[in-house]
This record gives sequence, structure tokens and C-alpha cells, in this order.
Amino acid sequence: MPILTVCMNPALDREFYINDFTIDKLHRLTIENSRMTPGGKAINVAVDLAAFGIKSVVTGFIGGYLGDVVLTELRETSELITTNFVHIEEEIRENIAIIDEKNHTLTEINSSGPTIPLEDLQHFLRRYKLIVPTVRVVVLSGSLPIGIPNSIYGELTKLAKKYNKAVFWEAKDEIITESLKISVPFVLKPDFRREKKLFGEDLKTEQDYIDAGKEIIRYGVKMAVLSYKIDYDIVVTNDGVWFVKPLVGVEHAHLLGTGDTYMAAMIYKYLETNDLVEIAKYGYAAALAKTWYKRKIPPTFEDIEKAMEKFKIERVE
Amino acid sequence: MPILTVCMNPALDREFYINDFTIDKLHRLTIENSRMTPGGKAINVAVDLAAFGIKSVVTGFIGGYLGDVVLTELRETSELITTNFVHIEEEIRENIAIIDEKNHTLTEINSSGPTIPLEDLQHFLRRYKLIVPTVRVVVLSGSLPIGIPNSIYGELTKLAKKYNKAVFWEAKDEIITESLKISVPFVLKPDFRREKKLFGEDLKTEQDYIDAGKEIIRYGVKMAVLSYKIDYDIVVTNDGVWFVKPLVGVEHAHLLGTGDTYMAAMIYKYLETNDLVEIAKYGYAAALAKTWYKRKIPPTFEDIEKAMEKFKIERVE
Repeated sequence: MPILTVCMNPALDREFYINDFTIDKLHRLTIENSRMTPGGKAINVAVDLAAFGIKSVVTGFIGGYLGDVVLTELRETSELITTNFVHIEEEIRENIAIIDEKNHTLTEINSSGPTIPLEDLQHFLRRYKLIVPTVRVVVLSGSLPIGIPNSIYGELTKLAKKYNKAVFWEAKDEIITESLKISVPFVLKPDFRREKKLFGEDLKTEQDYIDAGKEIIRYGVKMAVLSYKIDYDIVVTNDGVWFVKPLVGVEHAHLLGTGDTYMAAMIYKYLETNDLVEIAKYGYAAALAKTWYKRKIPPTFEDIEKAMEKFKIERVE
Repeated sequence: MPILTVCMNPALDREFYINDFTIDKLHRLTIENSRMTPGGKAINVAVDLAAFGIKSVVTGFIGGYLGDVVLTELRETSELITTNFVHIEEEIRENIAIIDEKNHTLTEINSSGPTIPLEDLQHFLRRYKLIVPTVRVVVLSGSLPIGIPNSIYGELTKLAKKYNKAVFWEAKDEIITESLKISVPFVLKPDFRREKKLFGEDLKTEQDYIDAGKEIIRYGVKMAVLSYKIDYDIVVTNDGVWFVKPLVGVEHAHLLGTGDTYMAAMIYKYLETNDLVEIAKYGYAAALAKTWYKRKIPPTFEDIEKAMEKFKIERVE
């Protein structure tokens, strides 16, 4: 049975490599210096799962010219990925990154994305209910477009659990806070990229992170994985608290998409074992291996095996 | 019979309105502040012709995701436009304009565009030969992609003249210089936007422009229309030389696409009269009327009539 990855807010990711990018000037771009890839966290998870040889179904909302590009590129990425989106009227998001490697700047233009009419949300829910019984795991990951309530992750999880499906989340605080009130996932990885916040509180010290992880567990989540200061992680389960720290330097410029690789690798391991700490370790190793490459490509199993030797995990509680 | 407009190098034109656009920052863009329109000079001419109620067939090379957007948008623009492009493997050009109205800056990112294989050029020529007998006028306007020789405007004109079709050109110096050796158009409007050059010589003084216009006429062209210092034009025919000067201030920020409106309006008038100076006057009036609007929209007949009162034409030779 495949994995269902839910991408409510897909995007077309574009990278323009332009040296000496300057305001009020005309810049010429060659095909070699320009890239166009499907984006959105749950889509990235599906792409990484495919690299690990795992079938997935990707659902969510898609529309417009940019949506057509995402769909076509996604279908061409791997035969292991099946797309099953609800089509909407509006254009999906476009994330343009203008990368100046000479002056080390990253200038971004992100379009706001569509507003989802209630009718399309209902259509999505009907479709979701039909897909869930046919999959093994449900992944809910990434942001929500306007029109979708923050509690949706809880609602979708409640439905998935009726069929005894394991659910994994990666999301920002508002979604976590509102959704946990409805239903809880098996594994939860807060998305701290924009804001280091949980349950409305700013996280500052290591202890803040540990406490937030424990709070997640009190809700009934089996494992919380929290990134602390980018490259070291705090893992909390019912059995204890662990620190996962790299033994090598981590290239921060290559962190794009590592959270999604982490998620895909945890699911890969979950299909083999119920040992939560082993699942977290494998996710961490895959994310670490991913930072060894500049481009948005999934790590190989060999790289992940190598990365298993490049970090330490220590139980702190 | 429709007009044939040949767009060898179509583009997707995109406008992003972002105030305080800054390097190394993340900018959010709403749908209202973003625009996506078919581009390329001959395509713009077809859009303006449609606004004047004139049918056209647009041909050239198109490909990729961006090409699909251009085709779809063009077909939706007007039922008076028929598309008949040769499909290529590569992506067409994308011209991104980041407009900061607060700080009055225009930052542009233009992609280089495709390389046309010889096979596709041959395909195009076969198709062109089939279309030409079915149209009234042929417009050759705009740049060429890699793989297409600068002499192509001459070759296509030679073919059109076999069927006694009137041909109009707007092009930059390299195309004019190499193409005039093969065959000459009825009306020629040099494109001086990037370089004020003709026959390899820099044009500086008013006299340089007059001399260049006369040189064009010596080749056998019936009328040369040369923009001098952006807002005033020099018209040269076998009968004399005229200056066309505005009586009102011209908003230079709104010059985008005025050359194409000029062309479309000259063709509109040509269908009514053979009086060359009348044709040039109508083109000038339409271009002037177009500057009254910020957006890339064709002027109305009413606006053009009003604009006829806002400039003077004086014979100087």
C-alpha cells in the first residue's frame, strides 16, 4: 500500500542563479542558470519517498498554469508517484529565489497563493475519505492556503485514524496548536523555519524545546522531533528525551528541503520497525546526508549509511 | 483576408509590482500585483490589430510550459487572432519586470530563449509558404532566437512579394542590414530601443537619422519611420522628409509597446489608403494615445482621434 502525502498549498519552485544581481538593471538568464521544480513540503516528501523506492499518492489543491507545470514535472519525476489533486480555479504559489553566489545573497519573491472556496474543500474531503483506506501512512506537511482552517490537520488525522493509519505531521505552530485539539498524529515535527514558536510561546532555551516536546507528548503524540539551533535535534517520546548532534560541520546554505527528507526517511524506517528512536535516527541521518549536496536532490542509501556514523545520539532524560 | 504577423521569438511577459524591492530579502506578491501576458513584438501587433477589429494569423516558434501559457492567453485575448506556430522542444523566453513604483526602479530578468534547430526552421518555412497566399499583409517584427539567420526577414519578404503582399518590418540594425540585401519591405521602422544604430553606424544628430532614412528609401523601401529622441519621429519617403512632433508631454514610463501599436495602426490605415504620410500620422497618433495608459492595453479609436490633434507634422525636405 502506498503512502498518502497531503500538499494543501503546492508551489512552483524556481531558482535563478544571477551573479551581481542589482536593482534597476536588466539581467540575462541562461537555461543552465535557471531551474523549475515542483514545491511544497508534502510534494518534496513524495519525491524523496520515490527515491527510496516507496510508492506515494499526492493530494491537495492545484490550479492554473503553474499547477500544470507542477503536475507534469511531478509525474515525470517518478512512476512511484501518483497525483490525485482537486483542481482549483486560481494559480498556485510561485516561489522565485534569485541566488547571487558571488555576493552571497538570496532575494526571494513568493506569490501569495490561491483562496480555496468551501466547495473545493468539500470536494477534497470526499476524495480524501476515498483514498485513506487504500494507503498505509498519511503525511500532512506544509502550509495552508487561504480558506482552509488551521484545524484541518486534526480533522484529516481523525479520519485517518478511523482506518488505523499512522499519521505524520510537519507544520507551523498555528496548525499544530489548533489541530492537536481535534486529533493527534503518530509523529510530529514542528516547522520552526519561520518562527521558533510552539503553543503560542517563543522557544529560546534548550529547556523551552524539551518542555514543548513533552507538551506534545502529553497530547498523545508518540514522538516529537524538534530542530534546535538548526543542526541539532531534540527527540521526545513517552520513554525519554534524546539529543541528536552532528559530529561534522553542517553547511547551512544546503538546508533547503532537509526537513522533508527527514520526514520521508522516518516513514521509510517506520515501514521496517516500530522503534521510535531508530526511526528518528534514520530521519536525522538522511537529512544530514542531504546537506552534502547543493541541489534539491534526495540522498542515496549509501550516503545515509555514511551519515549514520557522523552524529551522536545521547539520552538526557 | 487576415494579416500575418511573424513572431520568431515569443516571450511570456511578467510584471511584478513590488514596493521597496531589496536584494537579500523575501518579498510577498499578491495576485493583484502580478501580471502574465503574451509577449514578443509581432504578438503585440496582433493583439493591437484585434483591438482595431482586424483578423490576424500569428506564426513563429513556440515551446515549453511558457509557450503553452502564451498560446492559451493569446487564444483567449480575441477570436480575431489565429495561432499557427511551429512547436519546438525548448522553453521560449520569459521577461520578468520587477517594478518598484515607490523608488522608481525597474529590475529585469530576461531568459535567453531557445535555440532553433534547422529542422524546425525548415518546418516553419514550409508552413509560411502555405499561409502567405491567404493573407493581405505580412508583418515581420521583433528579435530572432539563436539558430535563425539575420537575413530571414529578407527571405520571408522575397516569398511574400511573389504573392504581391505588402510587408512591414520593425527590427534592430543587424536584421535590417542583412535582410535588406535580399528583399525590401513596404514600410520599415527600425527598432532603436537597445541601440540607436543603422547600417552599423551610430546615429547621433537629427541629420544622421534623416540620412539613414534616405538610405533605407534608396534600397527601395516605400517609407521609413524613425523614432528620434523617443517622442518625435522622422518619416522619409520618395517624396520627402517629415518631422512628427508631439504638442503635449509624453510619459516616458508608458512607452512599453508603443512601437507595436504604431505598427498595428499603420496597417489599419494602410487597409484604407495608400497615402504614406496619412499612414504614418495614424500610427503616430495611436502610439501617442497608448502612452496615456500605464498598462499594456491598446488605445481606442476615440483616443486615437483625440491624439490626432496633439501633434504636428512638418515637411522639412
